[in-house]
Amino acid sequence: MTDDPMYHVDGDLEPASEATVSVDDRGFRYGDAAFETMRAYGGSIFRWDAHVERLERTCDALSLEHGLAAGDLRARIDETLAANDLADAYVRLSITRGVQPGKLTPRPEVDPTVVIYVKPLPRGGLEGEPVWNEPAVVRSVDTRRIPTEAIPAGAKTHNYLNGIIARTELRSTANEHETDERTSDDPLPDEALMCDLEGNVAEGATSNLFFVRDGTLLTPSTDCDVLAGITRETVLELAAEADVQTRAGRYDLADVLEADEAFLTNRTWELRPVATVDGTEIGGGPVTDRLSRLYDERVETSCY
Amino acid sequence: MTDDPMYHVDGDLEPASEATVSVDDRGFRYGDAAFETMRAYGGSIFRWDAHVERLERTCDALSLEHGLAAGDLRARIDETLAANDLADAYVRLSITRGVQPGKLTPRPEVDPTVVIYVKPLPRGGLEGEPVWNEPAVVRSVDTRRIPTEAIPAGAKTHNYLNGIIARTELRSTANEHETDERTSDDPLPDEALMCDLEGNVAEGATSNLFFVRDGTLLTPSTDCDVLAGITRETVLELAAEADVQTRAGRYDLADVLEADEAFLTNRTWELRPVATVDGTEIGGGPVTDRLSRLYDERVETSCY
Repeated sequence: MTDDPMYHVDGDLEPASEATVSVDDRGFRYGDAAFETMRAYGGSIFRWDAHVERLERTCDALSLEHGLAAGDLRARIDETLAANDLADAYVRLSITRGVQPGKLTPRPEVDPTVVIYVKPLPRGGLEGEPVWNEPAVVRSVDTRRIPTEAIPAGAKTHNYLNGIIARTELRSTANEHETDERTSDDPLPDEALMCDLEGNVAEGATSNLFFVRDGTLLTPSTDCDVLAGITRETVLELAAEADVQTRAGRYDLADVLEADEAFLTNRTWELRPVATVDGTEIGGGPVTDRLSRLYDERVETSCY
Repeated sequence: MTDDPMYHVDGDLEPASEATVSVDDRGFRYGDAAFETMRAYGGSIFRWDAHVERLERTCDALSLEHGLAAGDLRARIDETLAANDLADAYVRLSITRGVQPGKLTPRPEVDPTVVIYVKPLPRGGLEGEPVWNEPAVVRSVDTRRIPTEAIPAGAKTHNYLNGIIARTELRSTANEHETDERTSDDPLPDEALMCDLEGNVAEGATSNLFFVRDGTLLTPSTDCDVLAGITRETVLELAAEADVQTRAGRYDLADVLEADEAFLTNRTWELRPVATVDGTEIGGGPVTDRLSRLYDERVETSCY
């Protein structure tokens, strides 16, 4: 694979450097689009069915009837992986509402634009190295998660400014600490932890949070405007199978700071231990390690 | 001007049908972009300085330092109007954070993508016809405005799903009424009225709301997660100059339903009377007419 991968845009393979959408596409004008971030291991998409289900939930929330069969979408992904000679990869699938006359109100008849992005991602897992270099340095931010009354929290869309604004807060936090108690040895924060409007811990800009106290695995409930990640769901399943006690609930930041272990999950990171939250050391530990290993095993049995 | 207007994309004039952005542009991937909707009357952009100011406020909220001078942006707009031989037009200016490596956290150094859209819009005003055909049929919806704690309400961005979801609710409301008390003579609703999370009336999906009770002009305060439109601001200025008593405050739907007059404002509609809200007749009236006339006069003195 070269520096210029092939993307799949509106039915055709195109070099990424030339892959475009119309400026009138609603995906561009309004972020009126659904997406999924996936991983291919050995050429298989891990938990494909779960991604298809969530994509449909997102499209339902947007009343976006794209009319594309899951098999068609999967064929485009497979074609893209093959064109790039990739077996282990990051895969992003976007479906927009396409070009419509210049009105905000969407028309029910949709000619969707489908874009598939890929890039190589080392397999990691049981035998390899994880894709992250270091445990995550997490900072809580002032930006609150968008409440589900405004945009359904379970919808994964191209409206991603909430997370972007949260991440830009890390920049100013870092600066503040540079002129303050921060020393040059402190690592820069790389994930922003958002609360819901009531102050319950919700999630990172691109990750779900888990933490462990007295052997129990805790995670913010989907009542807290959390986007329920598929990796999160997988971890909850694995914990249940392994008889690790779990609880999804409402927690505040102090609960997290007192944790024995903490980790973040998303499709790309899988399970990534949390080094610190707001400077307080937490780290991984036996529960994080065990669940990481079970996750790797699940990938192996599903995809090889 | 043909059916295929010329747009201005990243420094070049291009036929709309061929105008594109990279699928890796953050404006497409995340809706990570600011925009302004303007009107040109006789070749002049009405209240250009106010648009420049708001654009800067939006970019500040997004930490998007695009580095473009207002004069440069204006030159591109003028060039686009000239290329289309347009004097009276709708003009949309979008600035995205451009293409950056595939991380959500934005880099401070930005190579922005600038897109200018135009389309003809009859001048309207003192001598002409307004661009809307009929007074607005408004329905209140369940979707709540995104609170400013999640995304600053004053930022005008490509994250427009909140308004789109509100508008799609009109479709289901219409269906519901078709099988219910709705008769085929009832007009379809064309604007969705959203409340903030506390239930205060906020705004339409693309418009601000004004209503009149006992001669006083009322409008939801910017404390209610309202995007303060420039047309709204102009109307408030005109009302103050004309000694119309005004109050920006917190109102619930019942306050609006009891109004003597109501109208919506946005750049395109200017002042548009409200026929009904949730089926209750309101209509325009003397205050609406007077302010509409003052608005038209302001356009005439500013742009001709």
